[in-house]
Amino acid sequence: MRQSQTLLPTLKETPAGADIKSHQLLLRAGFIRQTASGVYSFLPLGKKVLTKVEAIVREEMENAGAVEMLMPALQPSELWKETNRWDNFGPELMRLHDRHHREFALGATHEEVITDLIRSEINSYKKLPLTLYQIQTKFRDEKRPRFGLLRGREFVMKDAYSFHTNDESLDEVYDRLFTAYSNIFKRCGLNFRAVIADSGAMGGKDTHEFMVLSEVGEDTIAYSDSSDYAANIEMAPVIDRYEDTKQTEIDELALVSTPNQKTMVEVASFLNRPLDQGIKSLLFKIDEEFVLVLTRGDHDVNDIKLKHIYQAVEVELATEEEAKNLLGASVGSLGPVNVKNVEVIADYSVKSIVDGYCGANEDDKHYINVQPERDLVISKYEDIRFIKEGDLSPDGNGIIKFAKGIEVGHVFKLGKVYTEKMGANYLDEFGKSQVMTMGCYGIGVSRTLAAIVEQYNDENGITWPSAVAPYQIHMLTMQSNKEEQVELAEQIYTTLKENQIDVLYDDRKERPGVKFADSDLIGIPVRLTIGKKANEGIIECKIRATGEQFDIHISELLGRLQEVL
Amino acid sequence: MRQSQTLLPTLKETPAGADIKSHQLLLRAGFIRQTASGVYSFLPLGKKVLTKVEAIVREEMENAGAVEMLMPALQPSELWKETNRWDNFGPELMRLHDRHHREFALGATHEEVITDLIRSEINSYKKLPLTLYQIQTKFRDEKRPRFGLLRGREFVMKDAYSFHTNDESLDEVYDRLFTAYSNIFKRCGLNFRAVIADSGAMGGKDTHEFMVLSEVGEDTIAYSDSSDYAANIEMAPVIDRYEDTKQTEIDELALVSTPNQKTMVEVASFLNRPLDQGIKSLLFKIDEEFVLVLTRGDHDVNDIKLKHIYQAVEVELATEEEAKNLLGASVGSLGPVNVKNVEVIADYSVKSIVDGYCGANEDDKHYINVQPERDLVISKYEDIRFIKEGDLSPDGNGIIKFAKGIEVGHVFKLGKVYTEKMGANYLDEFGKSQVMTMGCYGIGVSRTLAAIVEQYNDENGITWPSAVAPYQIHMLTMQSNKEEQVELAEQIYTTLKENQIDVLYDDRKERPGVKFADSDLIGIPVRLTIGKKANEGIIECKIRATGEQFDIHISELLGRLQEVL
Repeated sequence: MRQSQTLLPTLKETPAGADIKSHQLLLRAGFIRQTASGVYSFLPLGKKVLTKVEAIVREEMENAGAVEMLMPALQPSELWKETNRWDNFGPELMRLHDRHHREFALGATHEEVITDLIRSEINSYKKLPLTLYQIQTKFRDEKRPRFGLLRGREFVMKDAYSFHTNDESLDEVYDRLFTAYSNIFKRCGLNFRAVIADSGAMGGKDTHEFMVLSEVGEDTIAYSDSSDYAANIEMAPVIDRYEDTKQTEIDELALVSTPNQKTMVEVASFLNRPLDQGIKSLLFKIDEEFVLVLTRGDHDVNDIKLKHIYQAVEVELATEEEAKNLLGASVGSLGPVNVKNVEVIADYSVKSIVDGYCGANEDDKHYINVQPERDLVISKYEDIRFIKEGDLSPDGNGIIKFAKGIEVGHVFKLGKVYTEKMGANYLDEFGKSQVMTMGCYGIGVSRTLAAIVEQYNDENGITWPSAVAPYQIHMLTMQSNKEEQVELAEQIYTTLKENQIDVLYDDRKERPGVKFADSDLIGIPVRLTIGKKANEGIIECKIRATGEQFDIHISELLGRLQEVL
Repeated sequence: MRQSQTLLPTLKETPAGADIKSHQLLLRAGFIRQTASGVYSFLPLGKKVLTKVEAIVREEMENAGAVEMLMPALQPSELWKETNRWDNFGPELMRLHDRHHREFALGATHEEVITDLIRSEINSYKKLPLTLYQIQTKFRDEKRPRFGLLRGREFVMKDAYSFHTNDESLDEVYDRLFTAYSNIFKRCGLNFRAVIADSGAMGGKDTHEFMVLSEVGEDTIAYSDSSDYAANIEMAPVIDRYEDTKQTEIDELALVSTPNQKTMVEVASFLNRPLDQGIKSLLFKIDEEFVLVLTRGDHDVNDIKLKHIYQAVEVELATEEEAKNLLGASVGSLGPVNVKNVEVIADYSVKSIVDGYCGANEDDKHYINVQPERDLVISKYEDIRFIKEGDLSPDGNGIIKFAKGIEVGHVFKLGKVYTEKMGANYLDEFGKSQVMTMGCYGIGVSRTLAAIVEQYNDENGITWPSAVAPYQIHMLTMQSNKEEQVELAEQIYTTLKENQIDVLYDDRKERPGVKFADSDLIGIPVRLTIGKKANEGIIECKIRATGEQFDIHISELLGRLQEVL
């Protein structure tokens, strides 16, 4: 492609409002432009990368046995009402009506449409399992679109759906797509982790998020420093390794005054005791039932774990008023001693606290010398707290570290959540009607593009990995008015095209400095510069990522490029 | 692809509401399914064909120097208001608002979005011309969606836009894309015509529609039987070949009674005179001015031509009341004799009428013995009528015939219609600000798919041309419980895949009759049947389009298939 014939508007300055590297660089290097908040045009270079990522996705999906199709963006509201998502999806679902006042959703996801199709077309176990996918534009009206392609309102997604007669079949396809996803993100050059995630309110089974490690990620991952264990921190279990301490021969429980000391840190400091001897007592409302939840003072309650323990839909902290009514004190002075009207549960770590302290259910008062086994009535010990950096990895291998991640993929064993609601049934080998089992699998294709840029950039611009670079070669002449340079460039341009090597040729009448800066910004892996040595047939080659430079003679060009690419 | 692993739901019966071949067959053969009125899912086979058509479009567009990009479907209303199309596009434009009550259009076309982008990014003549295209889902809320993919509300379109400093540059790109379009539709195997079309209210210059000849087409094409001339009948000029008759030595004008004779045919019959001696007189309102328009009795007024003659926005027939007020008679008795308060214009053919008859501006009265040159005051003679079958072709070669056409493509020299309204300016070589000139070019990709099926089918199903067939080969076993048949099939399946030959393998446990019927319905060009001669290594080959059948030995399979494909 000749640069004079395409739209490649580079910018010297970082555009206002672009806070992260990928957003800044994709704008500056002329890959995208904003049409409206969270809505982007992919300019020719951006579209090129998108197409390359899509090709990788297609190849790996087909290898995994998934079959491509294409569903519409316009989705009748009736389908969304069948799963209650017309109401539950909230304002993120964009809605419109047609000229006959019929309501439609703009596809944010396609579980309803595909399940509707499958219940009409598949009626026998003989036609299952079946895995279908599409690459399609999706719409979600994000409250605060930001970070360019990372959180947009219109974006390109690969979504896949599988249908099964049983869980084993779902497990098998899930594993196959898990592998496909790993291959896809590897081929895109990404440093990522497959992370155990929360199946959430949907009530499905296994689910993993594929997270690209990045400081701008909105999720926190707990991962092992020695194994491939990784989980969303909400999901990581804590392995009990607390000592089984003896709680004998110690002082009696005693009430002390702690005026205006509300947080654990304040109380610890006031009492001059270690934070990890404190017993943090939080009153929760779990699906309308109150529960007093105890953790160690240096730990935090993980409400997702509470949700799972109680199989609850809603978990929230009790209000100041509810605390007062129930336990007689404000939330800063709550504690488990002598509590009888509320269930008390505790994290495993609480059990081994010796000589602890906790709120006394009396404002500005705390108990000291608390021995949980002696002084408290705890209905059960559970894993309730958030994992911390330095904890043992839940798989027993290594120590937990934290990282931020950008979610680029998601695989999910939905089970029968949708198929039951929508009546997607089949006849089994005995002619009996059964509900199908389902999985769904998403990849944010345009988001992946941005995630790649987050991991591949330096102070001069983008450093595309070869597999997804918009072009393989960026060629430029130092002086576009020197005939011998232009002639050699044209010769090389023709040769490369004949050999199916994707080349961008900067044929503009610009100063070399402008061309070099643009080339670094755009970040094509290999740059060929045709300068003063053109009459000797010598071209300067520069590897964008490493900065390595060397001369190539025209006679050996193809061979050397093959080595380099 | 193994048929057991894909979604390919064939139907024996023609679904209700599918009135034309392509709609019926695409449903029956499992290529598409309706999600809502005018909204379709492309099932795996449909998506395959779509991808093949898209690949042809891409290749030819790139060859023509167009560069691919991707614009969003969500388009801010502000842009559409700049061109007045927010109001003028009517209910076909789907609209919605986001959670912040900002209005958006769902892209029906992208002139506004691209012009907005170009005015921001292109400021110098050095960066022009520029031709960009995208393949994207479009939305139009058709009043009566019908004919399956031919008139849908959500459809795949290729749209391209070119920007220029002058008309010569636009002409050049227009010609190049005209050629690209011809190549695309040829490669799709279509029998089509590039048809001169009406540039309409948009006020552009040249425009051609690419029409696939088909009885179900909604447009009528006038084409020459001896040249490649073709035009929308609204646009075809009529070449004057009327005799210059002498209108002397004939009878005086005479008033006759014609009770209840209103139409030309009724009057001709009542007076017992030839229809082509009648002078049809219609009162039109052209942008609020009244004009009495005369044609020969056997001709029809072409109001598009009137619009062009008067450069008018609106042309409509006067009402009964307006006719009475202005000329004193009802519309069935209007005529040009002694008319002074209204301009009278006539088609060239009227000039040579001898001994004619016309309305007398008195109810139930007509004049006879009318000699236009003697009796009428005609302000001008113009080409006003619709061309007819049998007329001379406007290019002078051959005779005009009519055909129905499906519009699959459209190229349009927009000129400065959008660029002026939206201020898309550039600085010329003298530093002076100039308005860009623009062209736009569309292809209905999903509609093309349906048009192909309209031209390629027989009583048993579709007969895909090879270039766009979902697969090259359809292979099946007669008895899927015979080991030697399955083994041979598996062997061939592997061989074909290794040789990049796209094969669909019907591995279902169905009766041969079912498999054959499905295979004919789906319409893959070559069928390989593995039956009783499997143990001899012999496969039956059938060419879908011709019905030709012959045996192939496994040893010569690849060679023979290469001949056939």
